[in-house]
Amino acid sequence: MTTFAAKPAVMTAQEIDAFLAREFPQIHVHGPLYRIEQVSHAQATMRLTYHDSQLRPGGTLSGPAMMTLADLVFYVAILASIGPVALAVTTNLNFNFLRKPAPRDLIAQCTLIKLGRRLAVGDIAITSDGSPDLVAHVTGTYALPDQK
Amino acid sequence: MTTFAAKPAVMTAQEIDAFLAREFPQIHVHGPLYRIEQVSHAQATMRLTYHDSQLRPGGTLSGPAMMTLADLVFYVAILASIGPVALAVTTNLNFNFLRKPAPRDLIAQCTLIKLGRRLAVGDIAITSDGSPDLVAHVTGTYALPDQK
Amino acid sequence: MTTFAAKPAVMTAQEIDAFLAREFPQIHVHGPLYRIEQVSHAQATMRLTYHDSQLRPGGTLSGPAMMTLADLVFYVAILASIGPVALAVTTNLNFNFLRKPAPRDLIAQCTLIKLGRRLAVGDIAITSDGSPDLVAHVTGTYALPDQK
Amino acid sequence: MTTFAAKPAVMTAQEIDAFLAREFPQIHVHGPLYRIEQVSHAQATMRLTYHDSQLRPGGTLSGPAMMTLADLVFYVAILASIGPVALAVTTNLNFNFLRKPAPRDLIAQCTLIKLGRRLAVGDIAITSDGSPDLVAHVTGTYALPDQK
Repeated sequence: MTTFAAKPAVMTAQEIDAFLAREFPQIHVHGPLYRIEQVSHAQATMRLTYHDSQLRPGGTLSGPAMMTLADLVFYVAILASIGPVALAVTTNLNFNFLRKPAPRDLIAQCTLIKLGRRLAVGDIAITSDGSPDLVAHVTGTYALPDQK
Repeated sequence: MTTFAAKPAVMTAQEIDAFLAREFPQIHVHGPLYRIEQVSHAQATMRLTYHDSQLRPGGTLSGPAMMTLADLVFYVAILASIGPVALAVTTNLNFNFLRKPAPRDLIAQCTLIKLGRRLAVGDIAITSDGSPDLVAHVTGTYALPDQK
Repeated sequence: MTTFAAKPAVMTAQEIDAFLAREFPQIHVHGPLYRIEQVSHAQATMRLTYHDSQLRPGGTLSGPAMMTLADLVFYVAILASIGPVALAVTTNLNFNFLRKPAPRDLIAQCTLIKLGRRLAVGDIAITSDGSPDLVAHVTGTYALPDQK
Repeated sequence: MTTFAAKPAVMTAQEIDAFLAREFPQIHVHGPLYRIEQVSHAQATMRLTYHDSQLRPGGTLSGPAMMTLADLVFYVAILASIGPVALAVTTNLNFNFLRKPAPRDLIAQCTLIKLGRRLAVGDIAITSDGSPDLVAHVTGTYALPDQK
């Protein structure tokens, strides 16, 4: 695998949290449920604290909470790698929903498998806290603004 | 194109609305923002009323509202085609985010391009109300429960 | 839908055929099986002539011929829209295989649903000649080189 | 990650090679270029020997050879896990093309991230021989036949 991780992050988890709270206050509408656990160059881990607002009886509508978490951890991994780029935009997200998540916290781990000048591609694994099995697997692409 | 539309829907928009409100009350947490506009066999159109909770400064985190809308209109198209199947589960969703949506209602139109015994595949076009340009295009798969 | 089609193509089908034969002679290794049927701005239609080399007993390995056709018709639609760009590269392709194709010609129709400065996104419908049902549906992204 | 690998494969690499050569002789049309390197439960590794027929000047048409390799290694991982199922069919493949591959052998490693009763989902990493960097990343779904 590509070995980005030796480089340090350019923003700390605290700096990214402050950036997100300022730029995207909506993610905390139900309280601080989305929390950065760890960042390094080209990697980020987030936890989504379990909350009744995510409950889906029967599990039929899998995923708005997972989809939001995936998009967010991907953006955090980019911020950790290249700094505050408010103009990065998601261009593609592909979700495979694998198992019905238990009513527990979700952990999302993103690895940037490409970090180019114009595009970043991420691989995101989502698990239920306490189990190694993937509940969802996601890949996605961010378009990065032209850099001077 | 596959011409499903000649067959009538097996549930009306009103029946599906009632089913969703009973099974998935969370979608109305900010009020009745997600509204079915039209259903027929293998097709559904929904409107997401614009609401400040969807606002994203700079547009960076494109999409939780659009992703929820896409998953929902897809499920509505399935309900309209085969009736109340609470156990249908999304297995794949692939999003292409094409243009930054204007601060207006979003319209999502889903066509089932396959409606098999075990899998349904949908094609979903999302536009901003009043403009023909796609803001997002989505394809997805639902696994259907075994039918007797 | 986005209405690109009023603009004329910048290359004719004959010019694109000559460009492909010169730059990518491999596509004709089994003879001239991939043929452009029609091009206009942001649209292209190609036919893959049926040939035993595509046969898959049981249909299990669905798709290398369809995948090649989809990538190619997408590239042809870009050439028709912005001219000869040998450096355009596919960055994402998402395939949904819907029905087992009959042993007949395949028809692929590509519409560019976004044609930006740096990215083009295409929607590709593949049918068997003589039937309106989709055998596969594809979306994809091409990264375009910086233009002066 | 899900830890399938402790279970042994139900078919050896030799048995799978023989099954493929019998059922899908077309993959060897240019000689035995696609070779199984290793199989275990829910995992497979294949090598695509470099051959001029895959050459793409400029690299523009990235991928038919990679797409075929991805579909094949995925099928091999399923065969290794549940035995000869000629009726398994690919329903979805999502490709992210990350780097232009060097003119060398390609190595594809597939891990099944879900192996259910009706669906198998695979994660496939493709690298150039001798480099750890991904040239492509693929996820996909196979529909499995009903099992007695």
